[in-house]
Amino acid sequence: MPQRPVVIVSNRGPLSFARDERGLTARRGAGGLVSGLAPLVAGTDAIWLAAAMSDADREAAHHGTAEEDGLRVRLLDIDPARYRMSYDVICNATLWFCLHGLFDLARRPRIDERWREAWDAYRAVNDAFADATADVAPEGAVVLLQDYHLALVGPRLRAARPDVATVHFTHTPWCEPDGLRPLPDGVARALVEGIAANTACTFHTHRWADAFAASHRAYVGEGVPPRIGVTPLAADPDDLARTASSDACAAARAALQSTVGDRKLLLRVDRIELSKNVLRGFHAFDELLTTRPEWRERVVFAAFLYPSREGLPEYLAYRQEVEGLVDRLNEKWSTSTWTPILYDARDDHPRSVAALQLADVVLVNPIRDGLNLVAKEGVLLSERDSVLVLSTEAGAWEELGGHGALSVNPFDLTATAAALHDALSMDGDERRRRHEQLHAVASARTPRNWLSEQLSAAG
Amino acid sequence: MPQRPVVIVSNRGPLSFARDERGLTARRGAGGLVSGLAPLVAGTDAIWLAAAMSDADREAAHHGTAEEDGLRVRLLDIDPARYRMSYDVICNATLWFCLHGLFDLARRPRIDERWREAWDAYRAVNDAFADATADVAPEGAVVLLQDYHLALVGPRLRAARPDVATVHFTHTPWCEPDGLRPLPDGVARALVEGIAANTACTFHTHRWADAFAASHRAYVGEGVPPRIGVTPLAADPDDLARTASSDACAAARAALQSTVGDRKLLLRVDRIELSKNVLRGFHAFDELLTTRPEWRERVVFAAFLYPSREGLPEYLAYRQEVEGLVDRLNEKWSTSTWTPILYDARDDHPRSVAALQLADVVLVNPIRDGLNLVAKEGVLLSERDSVLVLSTEAGAWEELGGHGALSVNPFDLTATAAALHDALSMDGDERRRRHEQLHAVASARTPRNWLSEQLSAAG
Repeated sequence: MPQRPVVIVSNRGPLSFARDERGLTARRGAGGLVSGLAPLVAGTDAIWLAAAMSDADREAAHHGTAEEDGLRVRLLDIDPARYRMSYDVICNATLWFCLHGLFDLARRPRIDERWREAWDAYRAVNDAFADATADVAPEGAVVLLQDYHLALVGPRLRAARPDVATVHFTHTPWCEPDGLRPLPDGVARALVEGIAANTACTFHTHRWADAFAASHRAYVGEGVPPRIGVTPLAADPDDLARTASSDACAAARAALQSTVGDRKLLLRVDRIELSKNVLRGFHAFDELLTTRPEWRERVVFAAFLYPSREGLPEYLAYRQEVEGLVDRLNEKWSTSTWTPILYDARDDHPRSVAALQLADVVLVNPIRDGLNLVAKEGVLLSERDSVLVLSTEAGAWEELGGHGALSVNPFDLTATAAALHDALSMDGDERRRRHEQLHAVASARTPRNWLSEQLSAAG
Repeated sequence: MPQRPVVIVSNRGPLSFARDERGLTARRGAGGLVSGLAPLVAGTDAIWLAAAMSDADREAAHHGTAEEDGLRVRLLDIDPARYRMSYDVICNATLWFCLHGLFDLARRPRIDERWREAWDAYRAVNDAFADATADVAPEGAVVLLQDYHLALVGPRLRAARPDVATVHFTHTPWCEPDGLRPLPDGVARALVEGIAANTACTFHTHRWADAFAASHRAYVGEGVPPRIGVTPLAADPDDLARTASSDACAAARAALQSTVGDRKLLLRVDRIELSKNVLRGFHAFDELLTTRPEWRERVVFAAFLYPSREGLPEYLAYRQEVEGLVDRLNEKWSTSTWTPILYDARDDHPRSVAALQLADVVLVNPIRDGLNLVAKEGVLLSERDSVLVLSTEAGAWEELGGHGALSVNPFDLTATAAALHDALSMDGDERRRRHEQLHAVASARTPRNWLSEQLSAAG
């Protein structure tokens, strides 16, 4: 662990608060970053700064730094309306779409006065984070800024506190320069310049890092190029083991075994999210059942999808399309003893862990994805040498693509169906061989590596 | 004109045939390329090779080279089903969408067996073009290959006929490398490699040329980089003058003057096409009328939009959205003496010319556009020092953006509305000054320049 004091700054923090008759109580939050990092910084002097998300959080924010579960958390009380504008309109409905290439550009985005107000809110939120960090950061600290929500924190923070080093990490993909063209004039430059102004800016993959460097050349121009690093996040085996040993996981496992029986288990675990390519995954399964009748009644496609960003109309519409397609396909293929798609939209982490233990094939087919931690978790959890069918557009492909995964072009239904067939029919020796390769890569790093690389990037 | 014989190869040719009681008759076709080039090659020995589009065309194809109107045209009889697959599925529904960034990627494209059959058809059509060109090209000819429809002609033609030089010109934008990711494995490389295998590959702008070079590095790798040139197409003043002096144009002009009266005339002339950004143009006009009430009853927005590719569901849906929006806005803003939007979806070139003569402001706001010849034609035709509001995403922006046009970010409704206000309220001196700048650039080149640059590119 580092010599220099550490401050982690993220939109969502590792603790959330509730008020009940006993007063304010804190509990650990979920999410890839939080579950991976929290154990590493628990018990250290690191301070974690995050936005208050609820009234109870806001109350906690005014009590200063909370210490709970070994974590030192400082919540930031931001005006809720301003926070929502920044988070919903800029972060979720604009930047996420740009960075993942998800806009239906003939129709969206429409930059209007409301958007500009939201952009002002985004800048204000970033300023508030910068100022709060400047307040709490110990002398000479390393500040780890998480994600595109905080693109503008670096320059203001470093101006106020030249003694600190700042490392920005982007959890999403970064897009090629034209991907930022939908932003109004000056905004793409502000974002890229803001991230580049940190001591270092870091990404999951070389592909995203190169795209950021190209964006910097396109929007900021020549001059000093940013210091860019590649430090992919890793799955946390300890955290997975804890969940795997829980009663909830055992119960979910038994239930799933009884449903699937002696059939093959094809699995996907995702947020319901446009970038995850859920629709094409089901279309490819339909094509598999059409062109390879031997799999009818012999495979269950468990799709454990949990709702996400339901305040955005794009997400509600997508969920409706997904559920309509599941219904149609189950109606088309079901028999008296077999329902081909086991769809469930409850957020149930122990069940996901149980399913990843039991899966024969894990499908990870995003259109674009910063990393995709499920791809790595599935490898660590598998008890059946599960075959990983992995999109070339997932960040994790850069590590796993050449080491045992079956690569697929996520837009290609025929190729995806063929990969599913190959995966389902693969013999035990090849499964084992591929799984060993995947396991070697997925277990070579833990969140600890990521953290120490982040700290080293501070120079 | 050149020393070497010339062969022009394009999907659509300069003549189309009809059969009536007098037998086969030919007439000149329309379209930017054809109307610009046909007069230049008429009366020369140049041979123009194109696909037969109708039964009468097919009949003409079997009579060998047709000579008509000074043009020597050879039509290629391609199996209609194969041609439709290639043209509809690959050219219009896939490559056009990739090159313009128009896919709603969460849903489209879906690469399936039908797509693969269409890709085979595309390759067969390209082979047929290569073989026919190899047959008819005189010794040592320069072959000018037009557009992404013919990406694979070059290598096969040059293998059969090492004596000819081939120059490929892309009329659309070229996209950054990730724009080709939706294509199945090997296809992006085949396209880029095919175009790069010509003596030279040429584009409207440096931006598209750079994107092609980047695509070549990404999909083909290092090795010999392609020879790339930039030769923007130009408007044809003679052709415009001919139309302008027609009776049809005079009649359209009188009708338009009577409709518009002493109001300002804001004009757009486009195909109904997702890339043209028709919806946001109307939304921006709505914003103008909302935020600048002084323009109510004082401006007519003439939108002369002609249908396009109506066999594709995306285009039908877009047209319906456009027409629904026009109806809503006219209902919202009309008074007893004023209808704000004059929408017409007939293809009427003389009327478009008349409107460009009379317009006070011409809006050209595409999401992405290879060049946009209307931007240049509007400058040449204007009798009122019309102000050009021009998207930064149009190829023509590279020539006109810094020379008198008002630049707009096409995604930005507020900025577009503000540019429309500035354009409509601009005083006469500034209009004249800007118009002179624009006119100097737009009249500096004619199609003759483009043709001689294409021939020079043959080396």
